[in-house]
Amino acid sequence: MMIVMKPTADEQEVAAVVQRIESVGARAHVVVGDELTIIGAIGDREHVARLDLEGAPGVERMVPILKPYKLASSQFRHGQRTVLDIAGRKLGGEHFAMIAGPCTVESREQTLETAHAVNAAGATMFRGGAYKPRTSPYAFQGLGQEGLRLLSEAKEQTGLPIVTELMDLRDLDDVLEVADVIQIGARNMQNYSLLTEVGRSGRPTLLKRGLSSTLEELLMAAEYVLKEGNESLILCERGMRTFETAYRFTLDLTAIPVLKELSHLPVVVDPSHAAGRRDLVTPLSLAAAAAGADGIIVEVHPRPEEAICDGPQALVAGEFGYYMERVQAAAAVAGKVLSETRLAA
Amino acid sequence: MMIVMKPTADEQEVAAVVQRIESVGARAHVVVGDELTIIGAIGDREHVARLDLEGAPGVERMVPILKPYKLASSQFRHGQRTVLDIAGRKLGGEHFAMIAGPCTVESREQTLETAHAVNAAGATMFRGGAYKPRTSPYAFQGLGQEGLRLLSEAKEQTGLPIVTELMDLRDLDDVLEVADVIQIGARNMQNYSLLTEVGRSGRPTLLKRGLSSTLEELLMAAEYVLKEGNESLILCERGMRTFETAYRFTLDLTAIPVLKELSHLPVVVDPSHAAGRRDLVTPLSLAAAAAGADGIIVEVHPRPEEAICDGPQALVAGEFGYYMERVQAAAAVAGKVLSETRLAA
Amino acid sequence: MMIVMKPTADEQEVAAVVQRIESVGARAHVVVGDELTIIGAIGDREHVARLDLEGAPGVERMVPILKPYKLASSQFRHGQRTVLDIAGRKLGGEHFAMIAGPCTVESREQTLETAHAVNAAGATMFRGGAYKPRTSPYAFQGLGQEGLRLLSEAKEQTGLPIVTELMDLRDLDDVLEVADVIQIGARNMQNYSLLTEVGRSGRPTLLKRGLSSTLEELLMAAEYVLKEGNESLILCERGMRTFETAYRFTLDLTAIPVLKELSHLPVVVDPSHAAGRRDLVTPLSLAAAAAGADGIIVEVHPRPEEAICDGPQALVAGEFGYYMERVQAAAAVAGKVLSETRLAA
Amino acid sequence: MMIVMKPTADEQEVAAVVQRIESVGARAHVVVGDELTIIGAIGDREHVARLDLEGAPGVERMVPILKPYKLASSQFRHGQRTVLDIAGRKLGGEHFAMIAGPCTVESREQTLETAHAVNAAGATMFRGGAYKPRTSPYAFQGLGQEGLRLLSEAKEQTGLPIVTELMDLRDLDDVLEVADVIQIGARNMQNYSLLTEVGRSGRPTLLKRGLSSTLEELLMAAEYVLKEGNESLILCERGMRTFETAYRFTLDLTAIPVLKELSHLPVVVDPSHAAGRRDLVTPLSLAAAAAGADGIIVEVHPRPEEAICDGPQALVAGEFGYYMERVQAAAAVAGKVLSETRLAA
Repeated sequence: MMIVMKPTADEQEVAAVVQRIESVGARAHVVVGDELTIIGAIGDREHVARLDLEGAPGVERMVPILKPYKLASSQFRHGQRTVLDIAGRKLGGEHFAMIAGPCTVESREQTLETAHAVNAAGATMFRGGAYKPRTSPYAFQGLGQEGLRLLSEAKEQTGLPIVTELMDLRDLDDVLEVADVIQIGARNMQNYSLLTEVGRSGRPTLLKRGLSSTLEELLMAAEYVLKEGNESLILCERGMRTFETAYRFTLDLTAIPVLKELSHLPVVVDPSHAAGRRDLVTPLSLAAAAAGADGIIVEVHPRPEEAICDGPQALVAGEFGYYMERVQAAAAVAGKVLSETRLAA
Repeated sequence: MMIVMKPTADEQEVAAVVQRIESVGARAHVVVGDELTIIGAIGDREHVARLDLEGAPGVERMVPILKPYKLASSQFRHGQRTVLDIAGRKLGGEHFAMIAGPCTVESREQTLETAHAVNAAGATMFRGGAYKPRTSPYAFQGLGQEGLRLLSEAKEQTGLPIVTELMDLRDLDDVLEVADVIQIGARNMQNYSLLTEVGRSGRPTLLKRGLSSTLEELLMAAEYVLKEGNESLILCERGMRTFETAYRFTLDLTAIPVLKELSHLPVVVDPSHAAGRRDLVTPLSLAAAAAGADGIIVEVHPRPEEAICDGPQALVAGEFGYYMERVQAAAAVAGKVLSETRLAA
Repeated sequence: MMIVMKPTADEQEVAAVVQRIESVGARAHVVVGDELTIIGAIGDREHVARLDLEGAPGVERMVPILKPYKLASSQFRHGQRTVLDIAGRKLGGEHFAMIAGPCTVESREQTLETAHAVNAAGATMFRGGAYKPRTSPYAFQGLGQEGLRLLSEAKEQTGLPIVTELMDLRDLDDVLEVADVIQIGARNMQNYSLLTEVGRSGRPTLLKRGLSSTLEELLMAAEYVLKEGNESLILCERGMRTFETAYRFTLDLTAIPVLKELSHLPVVVDPSHAAGRRDLVTPLSLAAAAAGADGIIVEVHPRPEEAICDGPQALVAGEFGYYMERVQAAAAVAGKVLSETRLAA
Repeated sequence: MMIVMKPTADEQEVAAVVQRIESVGARAHVVVGDELTIIGAIGDREHVARLDLEGAPGVERMVPILKPYKLASSQFRHGQRTVLDIAGRKLGGEHFAMIAGPCTVESREQTLETAHAVNAAGATMFRGGAYKPRTSPYAFQGLGQEGLRLLSEAKEQTGLPIVTELMDLRDLDDVLEVADVIQIGARNMQNYSLLTEVGRSGRPTLLKRGLSSTLEELLMAAEYVLKEGNESLILCERGMRTFETAYRFTLDLTAIPVLKELSHLPVVVDPSHAAGRRDLVTPLSLAAAAAGADGIIVEVHPRPEEAICDGPQALVAGEFGYYMERVQAAAAVAGKVLSETRLAA
C-alpha cells in the first residue's frame, strides 16, 4: 500500500501515518519527493489491507499495490493455467468448451429436443435454468424441482454434463443432485453466503460477472469460493452495463485477455444475454473465441418464437451445427480446440 | 406495449405480430406511418408483458409503455405519499428522518457512546451493522449476533428505533428480534429470495439501490417486497457506479425528485458510502435535504480514526449536532421538518 | 510517479526502469516489498510525465502521484479561492451568481422580455445562445450574428453581463464584441484550438465539463485556458452520461466539493441541460446551491411551450422570482449570498 | 414519434397535443389504452422532429420512432453496403483493410522505417499523426507541417495511401495536400464545424466514435459529413468509457454488427487506443476481425520503447507480419479478404 500525502502535510502528519502503519505490524518506507511525500506500507497483505487511512489528516489518498485477491491470482499458480475436467470434458488451457441449451427448462419435449440437438452438434455441456432470477416479480420464475428432474433426464439420455443456476441456498441440495456445474448468476456475484456455501460444496462452479462489477471485484468474489477449498471455478463474462442503449449490454471482450493475465482461472463468455438478439450472437461468439475465451455458454431453443423466456436471443437448434463450425474456426485462430466431448458420452 | 416494425417489414410480418398479440388476449392497434408501421398492444398488463417479440421477423423493437411495476407506482396510491410510522417516528411526507450511527457495531462502548451522541443531537433512528457485506473474504464481516445484542442495548438506553442490515436469510429471525427497520444492502437489491422473505415478515424495510441499478429496477425490487403485503418500505439512494474516479460513487440526487414522481414510497439518501470521505458528507447531505429527500442515513463514529471499517467516511460524533442543524436548515428549504423523535423516546 | 513492477520482474528489469528514470533527469527510489518492487520517480513534473513506461518489460503499471495540472490546482494559489469580477458582478468565494436566460436567442421579443424578467428578479448575468451545437444537422443551429446583436441589445437595456457560447474559432471576433463571458460547451471541452484561442483572448470563460469527462480532464482542459494567461475561468458541471435512462443526464453534485478541493476556480452548475425537464430544475438547483456551488446557469423562457429549442426544460419567466428566492435560501445554507448585481447595472 | 400521455392526462391535454402535432403539418393518431393514451405523430421526418413536447402538460414522454439520421441509414441505400476505393485500395463489403503506422510522426527515420515494414507485410494504408490531441497542454502536440511532409515522403516511397488526423480547421488545406483519408478523432466527433468542412472537402474521412458517444450520435455525426455530399465515410470504434479501470477503454465489438445493421457505412476498429497495452492489441484485433470489422487501424513502431507518444500500445514493426497473418485468418472466419494493396503500389 502506498499512502500519498497532501502537498500541505506536515511532519507530524507523516509521523502519525508511519506510526499507524507500524501499529498493524507493517514497515513504513517514507519517500520524500519535490512536491509531496509518499509512504510505502510493506508487510503482510492482510495487515496492510486493514490500514484504513483514507481521509486521515494529511493523507491525500491510498494507492493499493498488491491485488486484494490471492488464490485467484496468476501468481498463486506461478503462471500455470487451471484446466478443469468436468465428467470427462476438459475446459481451460487449449480446451474450448461449448455449453449450450435453453435459457429456461420449459417442458420435457423442449429440453430433450434441445439436448439431443446440441449433443449431435458436438456441444461440451448442457445448460438450462430451473430457477430463474427475474427483474419482475410477475414474470415466470422457472419450473424449480421439476426443471431439475428434466435436466437429469437430458443428462441420462445424452451424457452431457449439466450447468444450472442456483439462486437460493435453500435449493442447494436439490441442485447438487443434478448439476455438474453450479452457475452463480450476475445478480448474485456478490451474494457472499451463496459463494461460501457453493465453495464448501466443492462442486465445479461457473461464476458470472455482475453487470457492473469490475474485474477485480469478480476475482474477489472468486476468492470467496476458492477460499473454501473449491478450485473448480470458471469465470464468465456476460456483458457490462454502459450508457449505450442500441443493444442490451456491452460485451467486454477485453476482459478475456485481462482476466487471463490476472488469474489462472478459465474464462468463458455468454453472448446471448449480452446481445439480447439472435443476430448478434454469432458475431459476438466468433469474436469471443478469437479473443481467446475458454468456452462459450449460449442459449439454444428448438422453436425460439415459442420460448417462454428470452426466445429472441436463442439460437435455433436446427442451425446450431453450422454455428459450432464457425465458432471452432474462430477458436482455432486463438490456438484452441473443441473439448472432445462425444468420446465421454 | 408498442411494437415498432422494421421499414422493410411486409404485411405477413405485421399480421403475425397482430396474431401473436391477440393470442395473449390483448388487442392490436396498427398505425401505418409514412416510413414504417407501429403496432400497439392494448390489454391486461401481465399479458402484454409476456409478449416476447423482440427479434421476431419484421420487428425492430418493443417500446414498453406501461411501467413494469404497479404497487410501487404513484398511480397505485393516486398520488398520495406513503408516510411511515416507525415506533412513533414518522418518515415521509413532510417528516424528515435522520438515521445515524456507526457503519459497523464494533464494541459496546463505541455503540452506546454513538447512540447517546446521536440521540442527544435529535437523530430519528439509530443505524449499525452486525452483518457486513465485504468485497474481500479476508475483511472483517461484523460481530453477528453479538452485534445485534449491542444494538438492542442501544435501543433500550436511548429509545431510538434500530436500522440494521440483513444479508442472509438464515439470520432473519435473529434480525427480526432487534430491527425496527431491516436494511437490504445495495448488493442484495436483486436478491429475490431475501426481498420476498422480508416482504413476508412485514417489518419496515429500507431498500438500497444497487450501485448500477436503474430507478426502474429499484422500483421492481420494491415490488417484490410490496407484493408480499409489506407496505412499510423506504427507498435509499446511495451512489451510482460511473466512470468518475475522483471519488467513490456518484450520488444521484436527481433520483430523489424522479423517484417521488414515479412512486409513493419515501426516499432517503446515504451520503457516507457514496462519498467515502468525511469532508464530502456534509455538502452531500445538505444537497440531498434541499433536493427533497425524506431523510438521511449517515455514519457517525466517536473516534473515526479507530474505526474497524469505513472510519474515513464517518462523521465525528462530537460534531454531529452542528451537522444536524445545517441539514435541518437545508430540509426546511424543501419544506420538511425533522421528525419529532425525542417525544416518543 | 510510482512504477509498480510485476511480482515476476527481475533485477535487470528493475535496473532498466531506474535507468530510464534517470535518463529523463529524475531520481529513482526503489522500494523492495515482500511480494513486489515499487520504484518512485522523483523530479521535475514535466520530465516525469514523459516517462512512458506503461507496458515496459517487468512493469505492471504506472501510478501518477502528482496531479497533471498545475495552474488550475489549489496549491497554485496556496488555498486561496479565485473570485471573479465580471462587469461589476462578483462570482466565487462567498458570492453566488445566478446566470439566467433562454437556451437560444429566438427573437427580439423573446430575448428582451426574458432579460427584463430575470433582471427584475435579481439575476446576476444573462445567458443566451446565438450559436447552438446540435446533435442533428437538421436541427435549428441558432440565429448567429443576429443573435449576438439581440444579446447586445439586452445588455444595453438591462445592464446584465452576457454569457454566450462560442463553437467555431471563425466566430471568435464576433463573440468578443458581445460576450462578457464566453461559454465553451460540453462537446468542446477538449477542443484544444478553441481553448487556446479563448485563453489568448483574455475574456472571462465558462468551461462546461464534457458529459463523460472526469474532473481531472476538466481541470486539464482548464489548464489550456489558464496557460495562455487567462485567469478568469469558471468551471461548470452540467450532468454526466451514465446508465440511467429515467432522466437525461446524471447531475454530479459531488463534483462541487471535489472540484473546490482540487482547484481554486469557481464552480457553477447547469441544472437545465442535466434534467431536461422543468420539474426537476428547481430541486436540482436547490441541491446545487446547498452543496456550495458558486452559481447556477439556468434556462428561462417567457413561454416555454413556444420555444424552438429545449422549451420543456426552461423555467417560466413569470415564476422566476419565486425560484430565485428559494435558491438564495439554499445558497445561504452553504454560506453564500447572491451577488449584488443591480447596484452595478 | 409516439407521445405517451400520463395516466392522469385529461381530454384537454390530449387535444392540445393533437393540435400541436397538426400545427407542424403532421397527422395525429390517438390510441386509447386501458391505462393511458398514446398519440402517434405521423408525417414528414423533419417536421415531426421539431415536436418538442417533452414536459408539456399531460405528456409523460416522447418515444422517437424514426431514426434521427437518414443518409447514414441502411434504408437510404436499400441494404446495399458502401465499398470505398481509396487510391486503388478497397475497404468495405468483403474487403478488409489494415491501416497501420505510428501513433505520431516523430522523425524521418521512424516514419519511413515503419512505412516500409507495414508495406512489406501487406498493410492497406499508412497512418500517422502530425497533429495530436493531447489531454495535457504540456504534452508533445505533434510535428505539424513537418509531420505532414514526412507522411508525404512515406507515401512516395511505398505507395501507401495516408490516413492522418485533422483537429483544427486552419490546418485543413495543409492536411488535404497529403491525406488520402482525413481522420476525425474521438474528441472531435461532435465538432460540427470540422465535420461540415471535411464534408465539403469531399475527401474520404475516417470518423472515430467519441468515447462516450452512442451509436446513434455517431451516425448523426456521420450525417453532418454525408449531408455535404461526401459519401466516402468510414466509421471507427475505438473504445468506450466505462466504470472498468483494469484497462484503458472498453472496446465495443457489439458496435460492429449493430452499426452494420443500422448503416451502410464501413466500420473499422482501433484496438490500440482502447487497450493502451501491446499485449491486448492482438486478441482485440482478432476479435474485431472475427466480429466482421471492415478493417483495423493499428499503431506500429520500430522501437516502441523509444516512442514519444503511446509507445506501450504500439506493435513492434518486426512482429507485424505475424500479426497480419493471424488477423487475416480471423477476418476469413467473417468472410473477409485482405484488400489487395500491393498491386496498386
